[in-house]
Order: sequence, then C-alpha cells, then structure tokens
Amino acid sequence: MKIFVLGGDGFCGWPTALKLAKENHEVWIIDNLSRRRIDEELESNSLTDIEPIGKRIATARNLGWDIKFWNIDIAKSYGYFAKAVNELQPDAIVHFAEQRAAPYSMLGQTERRYTVDNNITTTHNVLNAIVDHCPSCHLVHLGTMGVYGYSKEMGSIPEGYLDITVKETGEDASILYPTNPGSVYHMTKSMDQLLFQFYNKNWNIHITDLHQGIVWGTQTEETSMDKTLVNRFDYDGIYGTVLNRFISQAATGKNLSVYGTGGQKRAFIHIQDTANCVKLAIENVPDNKKVRILNQVSEVRSVKELAMIISNSYGTPIEFLDNPRKELAENDLAVDNQGLKSLGFQPITLTANLIDDVRYIATEMHKNLKEENILNSPKW
Amino acid sequence: MKIFVLGGDGFCGWPTALKLAKENHEVWIIDNLSRRRIDEELESNSLTDIEPIGKRIATARNLGWDIKFWNIDIAKSYGYFAKAVNELQPDAIVHFAEQRAAPYSMLGQTERRYTVDNNITTTHNVLNAIVDHCPSCHLVHLGTMGVYGYSKEMGSIPEGYLDITVKETGEDASILYPTNPGSVYHMTKSMDQLLFQFYNKNWNIHITDLHQGIVWGTQTEETSMDKTLVNRFDYDGIYGTVLNRFISQAATGKNLSVYGTGGQKRAFIHIQDTANCVKLAIENVPDNKKVRILNQVSEVRSVKELAMIISNSYGTPIEFLDNPRKELAENDLAVDNQGLKSLGFQPITLTANLIDDVRYIATEMHKNLKEENILNSPKW
Repeated sequence: MKIFVLGGDGFCGWPTALKLAKENHEVWIIDNLSRRRIDEELESNSLTDIEPIGKRIATARNLGWDIKFWNIDIAKSYGYFAKAVNELQPDAIVHFAEQRAAPYSMLGQTERRYTVDNNITTTHNVLNAIVDHCPSCHLVHLGTMGVYGYSKEMGSIPEGYLDITVKETGEDASILYPTNPGSVYHMTKSMDQLLFQFYNKNWNIHITDLHQGIVWGTQTEETSMDKTLVNRFDYDGIYGTVLNRFISQAATGKNLSVYGTGGQKRAFIHIQDTANCVKLAIENVPDNKKVRILNQVSEVRSVKELAMIISNSYGTPIEFLDNPRKELAENDLAVDNQGLKSLGFQPITLTANLIDDVRYIATEMHKNLKEENILNSPKW
Repeated sequence: MKIFVLGGDGFCGWPTALKLAKENHEVWIIDNLSRRRIDEELESNSLTDIEPIGKRIATARNLGWDIKFWNIDIAKSYGYFAKAVNELQPDAIVHFAEQRAAPYSMLGQTERRYTVDNNITTTHNVLNAIVDHCPSCHLVHLGTMGVYGYSKEMGSIPEGYLDITVKETGEDASILYPTNPGSVYHMTKSMDQLLFQFYNKNWNIHITDLHQGIVWGTQTEETSMDKTLVNRFDYDGIYGTVLNRFISQAATGKNLSVYGTGGQKRAFIHIQDTANCVKLAIENVPDNKKVRILNQVSEVRSVKELAMIISNSYGTPIEFLDNPRKELAENDLAVDNQGLKSLGFQPITLTANLIDDVRYIATEMHKNLKEENILNSPKW
C-alpha cells in the first residue's frame, strides 16, 4: 500500500514508518521537524543520538526500503499538502502530526495556543484533503487513552463508544464516550474526535482512531538494525513518559519520582507494539459507516507498581512528590482492547529483560542527560 | 459593568451591544468586520442599508450611550486582544465572534477551514486572555441549539447536560449532551463546548454558553431609535435564516421555499429576545463550578408551520424543494428554557404584527434584493 506517515520523524512516527516500509509498503514521511525545534526551545534533547531525517532516510533506503521524506507544515501549508494527496493518492494516511506532550501544552499561553492551533488545524486540513482529493483513503489517527478521563461511574473503558440508558425516555443509546481530558493536549484529542465523527457522517470517510496508552521503550526491531536509525528517548519531565523517566533516573543513580500516591492506574504499551498496531489497523480497513475506535493498549499498571518493578530490579529508592496535575489520587482502570486483538495483536508486556534493554540505553547514553530536565514539568 | 462585545458589528452582536449600552453598561465592541467582508465575497448584502461601524457608533454615542469600537482580529492578533483584556479588565466578555452560517461553512474547503480556524482559535484565544489577565471575567458565549442534533432516543432537550445510566455499571451520571452537529459550523460550536469544559475545570473560569435557536426579525427597540442604527437583514440562502427568507419571498411575490416536507421542528427566537437574554445572562453571573448552559429559545415550530403562517397572512403559495441537508425529514422537539425564564426572560412569540414589521422592511427595501441569492444554499 501507499502510506503517508504524518509526523513520521517523531517518537512513535519514526519506528512506525520503518515498520511499514519493512513490510513492503511505500512510505512517505511528511513532517515539519517540529519536535526537533521544540528540543531547541526547551533546551532539551533525546537521550539517544538521533540523526537528521535525511541521514535516517538514506540508511533506511540502503536497507532496501521504499521510504521518502517531505517537509510540509500541514497546518500552515494546506495547498501544498492537498497537492501531495491529490497527486500521490495514498491508500492510508497515518496521522501522528500533533503536539503530543500534556506538560508542554500546559506551560503557558504560547504552548496552549500552539497545541490547539497546530493539532486542530492539522487534523482538519488532513480531513479536507481526503474529502476533496482522495475520498477512499483510510485515515488512521493516533488518539490517546487520556480522552476517557477515568471516572468511577463509567465502569471499564470500552472502545470509544459507551452504552447508556437515557433517564428521561428509558431508551438505550450508544454514544461517543463522554470525554474528560486532563490537559490542553488531551482536550485537542477530544476535539479531534468531533471532527472525525462529523467528517465520517457527512462524507463517509474511513477513519480509525487509535486511543493509545502511555508508550515506553525506545527501540524496535527496525530502529535497531542500524545505529543511524535509533529512535528518540525522552527522559525529561515535559516529553518523557513516566516509565522512561524512571528508567533514566535508575540508570543515573537518582531516586524514582512518583507523583502523588502513585495509585493512578494507567494503560501502557511498548513502542514496538505501537508500530505493530498501526500496521494492523492499516492493513484491516474499517467500513465507513462509523468511526472505528480501538484502544491501543497492552496492559494496565499503577504508577507505583511500575516504580516498584524498577526499584526492586535496580535497588533504586522511590520518592513521592506532589502531583502537578489535577487528577484522582487513585483510580481503577479496566480497558477493552479486543479490537486490535481480534486483528491479531499480541501485546508485549513489561518484563525485566525489556526494561533492561531500555536501561542499557539510558546507561550508555548518560553523557547526554541533563539532570535539571528530569523534573521540569509544569504544575497545573 | 464593563462589557466587551466580540463580533459586535454583526446581526446578533450589534443589537446586543446597543441594548447593553442603553442599560448603562460600558460597552466595547471588538470586531474585525468579517461579516461585511463575506458580503463582498458572496456578492451578497443586507436587505437593510446598514451603515459603517464608525457612523453607527457616532449615532449611539450621540444618544448618550457609552459605546466604543476596536477593530481586532482575535484569531490572528492574540497579543493585541490580550493587551485590551489586561488593560481594561472587563467584567464580562460576550463572544459572538464566530462564522455563524451553516451553509457558508459547507461551501468548500476554503470556507470549511476558515470556519474551523476562525471559530476555534478565536474562542481559545479569548479563554487564554481571560486565564492570563482577567480570571474573574465572565465569558458569555453564543452557542447554538444545533449542537444537540435532535435524535429520538434522547427525549426533550435539556439545558446542556443529559442524565444517563451507564449500562455496564448501572450508575447514574450527568454528562455533557452528546452532540450530533449537522454542519462544519455546528461542529465548531460542539468543539467550543469542550474548550469551555476544560477551561472551567482547570482554571475555574465563569462561563455561560447560550444555546440559541434560529433568530428571526431585524429591528429591536434600540436599533429602531435612529435609521443609522438599523440592523442587518440577511435574506439569502447562505446567511438568511428560514423565517426571514420566507418573509422576503412573500414581500417580493415569490413562492415560499420549504426544504423537504417542512416537518423539521426547530427552536426560534426573536432578535429582541437575543439581546434581552444576553443581558440577563451577563447580569446574573454563574458560579465557576460548572459551565452554565442555557437554551436561548422562545418557542418551537415546524418549518412548514412557519410557512403556513406567512402563506395565510399574505396569500403566498408554498413550494416544496429537495432538502440540501442530511437531516431527519420530520422530528419532534421539546426544549427546556427554564434557565433564562428563571432569570426573568419573557419570550416574544411569533405573532402577525411582529411579522408585519419585518415584512414592512422587506417591502420597503425591495430595491436591495438580489433575487438570485434567495436560494443559493449549497447542498450537503
């Protein structure tokens, strides 16, 4: 298939693009390199020595993969992007091209407004290009489990739609799960859902929205094939997700910093599984009667449980800090992930040897670590 | 009170600004005159001879009202708008500054993208200016009944929140009414709701969202005080709402054009009531525990019923045309409007003499009518 990977230079996009290319798909990465720009802005960095996109692409092509790169800011250059869709007629567009860090989206008005403007305009421009130029194209979007919002009354987390009874009429209905986002970033993903619902209803676009858990790990089978292909590793308080942060703390002799009681349960997924799941979603096109929403999740763990696994393995003490977020201190969480499983997804779960892989990188790349960045998350 | 009226040069904004000024509030109209620009773009016009904003303001000030005008594009000039909020510290901001025609939002990609970019960015920028510079300011937003979407299972339309039972847990919950917008324009108002929910939850902003019915009429007590103050009258298929279109058809000897069976029931409100309701909402500030959602509606009528009233009064025949929209041919509709009534709202309902007022204008201003514009709505 011919596949556009929007945001294909980023942490999830790059390994997914390589996975798709290795599976003999024709891959076009479209990216404006915004994640690299934000590194400069935050005086932050990947713990791994990531290469410029040109060098990455050259290596991948030397491995025999059909992969190309196009620098387009989809939010700002609609005409240019629409032309690409019109001329190349992709079978699928994978959309990772959003600002994806909750803490970044809460830094201040500049970052709040950038996150909304970039994410909403990009998603909407992609939908418009599909409607006008390639209406049979399948849009696969990276959403987030964070839109669900984890409230007690709602029960276990279904795949996007909630069965309810309306009290006044006693009638049953299936509704889009009522969102309760915890940051401006998560709010944009809730808003994306409304765009998908309407564009699917009115123009019958094929859409898959993958509500992904918190990603951990760094390397995949494909990014490990050459050191030039190495993936990003974000360890800082703004872009680093919790498990990678713990691992880099353990690797550098710091205490593991748990926010609040650590009783927050979250859904996790390894970066290899992200690539595998997106591949499954692309290769199994949904009908266009309804937006297909799948939970892209391998397992549920509490934050404290993660810290304990690492603390027990490496003897690193745990430190409890005030939670910078407004959220429940403790919550139950059961997540339905039957959709992807029915397509063949076999989750990779947290095991000591996988954590060892990540810790090896964190230790090896210690030279790149800026300690002051580990806990630089804003409070909100 | 010191009140900003965003979009205060438009059809609802102008009479509201005058009403507030006449009630001795200090009014700052902020508008980028986009509605006048769109008139040029569509080769369309107001049936009434509206005056430039400077002349309007001068007349209003001569009447002793404290009203000023500032030309700011809030979506594009955040810094300038934020400075105004910071320096003037308004007690309330009334937000009409959105592209407000469903047919316009469905013309093509340019209009779809303009509607989303303008409406979402403007709403979000307003919220950011409040959070950063004037956190106690009360935001009053003009939403629309159109977000509810009119589905049978849901029963009568409550004021923004729906009581449900979650089937899995058997637990009760009150959720934001699940939206089912019928156009890109309505979709933006659904997305606005998510912005309000999050900004209220995270920063405790006082917010009132007025879900308004279809507005009819032209003049209010205040706009009638001088012919320089006359309000817009949109009769075309893109900006003209259904009743005004019928009246201008009747006034010019055309058949009344009913889309589909005319069995669609809709909620209506007279323009005078728009101004009255916004005044009531501003003068009764809600707490900041929850977004206050009020249905700004006077009565429910079917489109056919409206056509019959006018047909009977003026002997104009009714003509049934294919419905350009994807919607139910017939629907029931019961709307709760207790919130505004509890604040003192006394609805003006459709009566022959009020319709006569509007018809008088339509007849008088016949010279301005471009017949080819009456049925220029796009299909979608």
